[in-house]
Amino acid sequence: VAISEFDLIRDYFSTRQQDRADVSLGIGDDAALLQPPPGMALAVSTDTLVDGVHFDRHCTPYDLGWKAAAVNLSDLAACGAEPAWVTLSLTLPEADDAWLSAFSDGLFALLSCHDVQLVGGDTCRGPLAVTLQAHGFIPAGQALLRSGARPGDDLYASGPLGLAGLALWSRQRGIELEQPSASAVFQALDRPEPRVELGQRLRGLATSTIDISDGLLADLGHICSASGVGAVIDTDSLPPSAAFSACTRPLIDNGSLSTGDMLALQLTAGDDYQLCFTAPAAARESLADLGVQRIGRIDDRRGDIRCVDGQGRAHSVTTAGYDHFASQTDL
Amino acid sequence: VAISEFDLIRDYFSTRQQDRADVSLGIGDDAALLQPPPGMALAVSTDTLVDGVHFDRHCTPYDLGWKAAAVNLSDLAACGAEPAWVTLSLTLPEADDAWLSAFSDGLFALLSCHDVQLVGGDTCRGPLAVTLQAHGFIPAGQALLRSGARPGDDLYASGPLGLAGLALWSRQRGIELEQPSASAVFQALDRPEPRVELGQRLRGLATSTIDISDGLLADLGHICSASGVGAVIDTDSLPPSAAFSACTRPLIDNGSLSTGDMLALQLTAGDDYQLCFTAPAAARESLADLGVQRIGRIDDRRGDIRCVDGQGRAHSVTTAGYDHFASQTDL
Repeated sequence: VAISEFDLIRDYFSTRQQDRADVSLGIGDDAALLQPPPGMALAVSTDTLVDGVHFDRHCTPYDLGWKAAAVNLSDLAACGAEPAWVTLSLTLPEADDAWLSAFSDGLFALLSCHDVQLVGGDTCRGPLAVTLQAHGFIPAGQALLRSGARPGDDLYASGPLGLAGLALWSRQRGIELEQPSASAVFQALDRPEPRVELGQRLRGLATSTIDISDGLLADLGHICSASGVGAVIDTDSLPPSAAFSACTRPLIDNGSLSTGDMLALQLTAGDDYQLCFTAPAAARESLADLGVQRIGRIDDRRGDIRCVDGQGRAHSVTTAGYDHFASQTDL
Repeated sequence: VAISEFDLIRDYFSTRQQDRADVSLGIGDDAALLQPPPGMALAVSTDTLVDGVHFDRHCTPYDLGWKAAAVNLSDLAACGAEPAWVTLSLTLPEADDAWLSAFSDGLFALLSCHDVQLVGGDTCRGPLAVTLQAHGFIPAGQALLRSGARPGDDLYASGPLGLAGLALWSRQRGIELEQPSASAVFQALDRPEPRVELGQRLRGLATSTIDISDGLLADLGHICSASGVGAVIDTDSLPPSAAFSACTRPLIDNGSLSTGDMLALQLTAGDDYQLCFTAPAAARESLADLGVQRIGRIDDRRGDIRCVDGQGRAHSVTTAGYDHFASQTDL
């Protein structure tokens, strides 16, 4: 029986593993055998990245590996889970050593940060696409859902928004951003840091949580829809980012970007993978140490999200300045 | 926030669900929340089907949905697991109602046979590909692995081989097969029945097990490699199939197929999703009721698989008569 080039791929993924005690059998058999801890719910999430849809030729193989892990761990973060295991389905046009080496480096770099083990998967020939599935644990009854927001709750974002959108905007148009701030902006797009620890800290504090993969307005819309509530965003309270400001200021000065475009990036651009969540006012003190920013409040205007600045002026937001890659829906 | 056409896809998958008691939260949030039963190992497996690689234009959307479920449940069967949950990542060039309706019909048809619930996933635009991930349970320590075969063990196949290969061979060449037997042959390719119940019956009896997705020789090769053993296959003992015989006889008579080609189909064609397993002679009586066929024995000639007929003549097997779709490797 000949060894195919695709058999050789296994070496890239089986040799540099975390070695978790709850993995009885990892890569190499028909299925992985895992030991979920007693009394914990198992959280399972999956996301696919497709060439030309979720990433383009600017995305290095290292960044693709990192990002495939990041988007899946971000889903676990959004429900407050502690990540444990992933599986990988990798479809490749050809088995290329340099590509596989860099891709697996990026994948394992982020997985090892969070003590997550790759336990199985498959590789096959076809148009480039990466599907990861992530498994994590949550104490029974403590999962953060989209459906728990209540009128009167505060609305929060876990960190600055629009950086990944600005990076994509500049790449798609070939417009240079000013260093050194540009590095932080491209880092947000290419190596997002899923808010895994924060998600677990929000257990018992947040009433609803989602990760911002499609843009704040779209993802807050999912919370409002699942919870049967509305929301007001205070646009002057959006989390500040020195890098975002340093990069957008000259663009606004030279007319490449309007202030409306800048707000649209913060409100509608995806891929930052911060968390959006709600919590009652009673939780403000506990949340103060977590570096999160209060950006508005939940009300009873079901499905209605309004953007208002510090002077009380309403802003309507369009996404004209920004083209999102993705056309994707979670099941 | 506009509802994209891809949001509408969710309806095809969220409305016709099994309703398992161990699913706390299914489709619709950032992650599914599941309750693995205490004292059981969790078996996890994933497989991708890519257009033009694992299936072609002859594969209907219904059959594709069925087959995506079948190949994943077959991996769980091979380790003796009871299937419970799947997630789906579906990449589609466009959201087509008729296609989605038929695909989901096929997917749910097989999942509901085995009380398996679709608990989450994602859909996105891109080249047609389907990734399923399957989860099942096995009492701790009872999983069937590839690595337990011992010299002296009997070698078994769970049912007839080569039917799916014959169906593919005839389609690729535009050669008609004789009815009514042709229906059974195409059924083996288009709607394989994963041996889920049999896998669970083999707990405590089989010393090693694998599902035959890549052909008997290739998959038995994995057992021999993982177990450090060799094997002899008695080619006259391969499980008989009236449909296979009825379809191949006229092809051999008219010279389209040689007897060597026919044997190659049985030994090297994939996609039948029968189980190949080993068991000690002491298990013969217990296995007699399961409809499985003894096809050879395991010996100590590490990595060496020989094919011998009832008269003791050695056969070397080539795959000249047959082109396999897949170029795929399990991690």
